[in-house]
Parts: sequence; C-alpha cells; structure tokens
Amino acid sequence: MKYHSSKIPVETARNEQMIDITSKVQEVVNAAKVQSGICIVFSMHTTCGITINENADPDVKKDIMHHLARIFPESESYKHLEGNSNAHLKVSTIGPSETVLVEKGKLVLGRWQGIMLCEFDGPRNRSVTVHVQGD
Amino acid sequence: MKYHSSKIPVETARNEQMIDITSKVQEVVNAAKVQSGICIVFSMHTTCGITINENADPDVKKDIMHHLARIFPESESYKHLEGNSNAHLKVSTIGPSETVLVEKGKLVLGRWQGIMLCEFDGPRNRSVTVHVQGD
Amino acid sequence: MKYHSSKIPVETARNEQMIDITSKVQEVVNAAKVQSGICIVFSMHTTCGITINENADPDVKKDIMHHLARIFPESESYKHLEGNSNAHLKVSTIGPSETVLVEKGKLVLGRWQGIMLCEFDGPRNRSVTVHVQGD
Repeated sequence: MKYHSSKIPVETARNEQMIDITSKVQEVVNAAKVQSGICIVFSMHTTCGITINENADPDVKKDIMHHLARIFPESESYKHLEGNSNAHLKVSTIGPSETVLVEKGKLVLGRWQGIMLCEFDGPRNRSVTVHVQGD
Repeated sequence: MKYHSSKIPVETARNEQMIDITSKVQEVVNAAKVQSGICIVFSMHTTCGITINENADPDVKKDIMHHLARIFPESESYKHLEGNSNAHLKVSTIGPSETVLVEKGKLVLGRWQGIMLCEFDGPRNRSVTVHVQGD
Repeated sequence: MKYHSSKIPVETARNEQMIDITSKVQEVVNAAKVQSGICIVFSMHTTCGITINENADPDVKKDIMHHLARIFPESESYKHLEGNSNAHLKVSTIGPSETVLVEKGKLVLGRWQGIMLCEFDGPRNRSVTVHVQGD
C-alpha cells in the first residue's frame, strides 16, 4: 500500500471563482505511481470548497457561482463579524473535499466531470491537499 | 488489500427522481468479498448525484426533490444554453458521491439510511461506479 | 493495513445545534495507532449531518444554522407526516459524512477547520461512526 500526499497551490483571481484543477490532481496521481486506489482532494480552508461538475461549457461554472450567491447573499445580517458567513455557508453546502477513484493510474471521472476548486472569499492563495492511496 | 469496482446501470423514469440503490451497492460489496473496508458510490454524471437519506417513508424523497426544485428553479435565467444549470447546481449541493464503511461484509448504515441516486435531468440511463477496497 | 472503528456518542441539547467533535475524532485516530491513512466520520442518522467548517468564532456556527433554517423553513408544506423534511433536506445538503486525511497520526486539517456534527432535529442522542484505516 502506497501513500502519497501533495499540496497543490491555487492562486485565485476574483472574489468568487470556480477553477478546474483536474489536471493538477492527475499530476499528483502520476507522481504517486498508484494504479488502483483512491484520491482525496481536500481544501484546507473554510471559505473555499471542492466539487465535481461540468468541465466543458464555462457558463455552468458562472451559473453555479451566481445562483449560490443568490441563495446565500452577502447582504444577509450575519453575526460573524468578518461578514463572510455566506462563504462559510457555501463551503458546507458544496463540501470541503471530494473522493475520486483511481484505476490504471487514472482518475475515474465521467466524460463531462472535472474536479473544481470553488473560491468563495478571494482573491487568495489557496492550498489543496491531494492524497493518493493504493497499489 | 482487495480492490473491486463495478458499474451499476440505473435507468431513471422521470425528469427528477430519487432511487434507493442500497441493495445494488450491497451486491457489489458481496462480489468483492471484502470484510472490512470502504465502499465509494460515485455518479459518473454532472446532472445526477448520490446522497444518503431516509429509506422508509417515500414522501421524504418527494419532499427533498420538491424543495430542491423550489430553491433552484428551472425558470431561472441561466447562461448555460442547455438550460439545465439547475440540475448542475443540485448535483454540487447534494454531491456526486458518498463513502460508506464496510464491516463483516456489510455496508454500515443507520436503521433509516439508504443510498440514493438523485436524478435531476432525466429520464436517462445512468451509470454509478461502486468501488470497494479492503480486506 | 489496520482497520479501526469506534462509535462516538453525541448528546445534543437543542433542536438545531452545531457541535465541534474534532477532539473526539482525534482520540479515535490515536487509539487506532495509524500513522498514515484516512479517517471517515459518518453520521448514522438522516436528520443529523457532518461538515467541516470554522472552529474559532462560534457565530459562524450560528450563521450556518440560522441561514439553513431560512432556506429550508419548518413551515413549508411537507408531505412527510413527521413534518421534519426540512431536517432531511439539510442533511442531504450538508452531507452525512466527511473524509479526513491522517498523517503522522494526526488529522490533517487547516488552521480554522473543525469537524462538526450538525443536529437538525434534536435534542437527541446521536451516534457517529469513526473509521480509521491505514498503516
């Protein structure tokens, strides 16, 4: 059983942004030299999550971010003095991590699926832990 | 360490539908002959997710689908030309996968928990990857 | 490869409550004597979920619970006769479990991240399964 962990740095450019990190995650899988196993992609932050969604039309990303902002508006009266509770709410909705299978050394994803970092309180320098375990 | 993956085909019948796939997942665990380990249930699609929720009263499924549709309505102005961004939003909310423990060859679930496929843009033929690893 | 599972009992005090269980989860990791691997924290219930979010300012927890209640109000007309479909909806939104990495015997979490049980239909006695596997 091999264990391999790496941190992927992601520099976000805007307050809200969805960034496809699939190829960076696959690079960690390659370095791990694991043929069969699992890969966990984990955001180390409470205002930045990980999801899996469409990798083709960039409008899907825009729609997701826009309508999450509609549901969890910035203008809500939050108790949290930093005022970014909407970002915390979105992270718990989207989730902080995804687990993806590895077969024959490749991430097992559907044709339209990409692994996405969701920035909800940027721009910031983010760190994503990618952990691969298997044989 | 054993690795066993199978694809479960699921044919959905309606535009929106929640289908209990627990027994199909348990069949894959049986075939894997794993006593202790984990089971990952992963949707290969971006408009169809996986969740765990009540397996008893079918009204819970109806309530979940109905109120997700209220929160992410079809009529919203989406940029995505296919017009199904509400389905993509629901998948990122519900999540594309669940990880369940396996002990003594059985999925470890609470009394009322079932593993559910959530169709948000059907009817379609869906494919769920079930991956079991353990000893 | 070691496998170690424990059930953590959590007694909730209110109808809705977010409780940091990170230290209890770390105790299970300690007992497992696993240096490298993964830890799965899994709620055995359909009205109580698990998330990872800010462990510092308690107002973040209040904001998360308050605004989830705004989005999924109790007063909605639910088909489910128990009338707690809002709790079921929140669990599928937040998710029933989280997977966290273990390195050098410690849970790998960001500075502000804590593992949280989210009670949506309490007060009740809850049971969380913590499963650690690795070497």
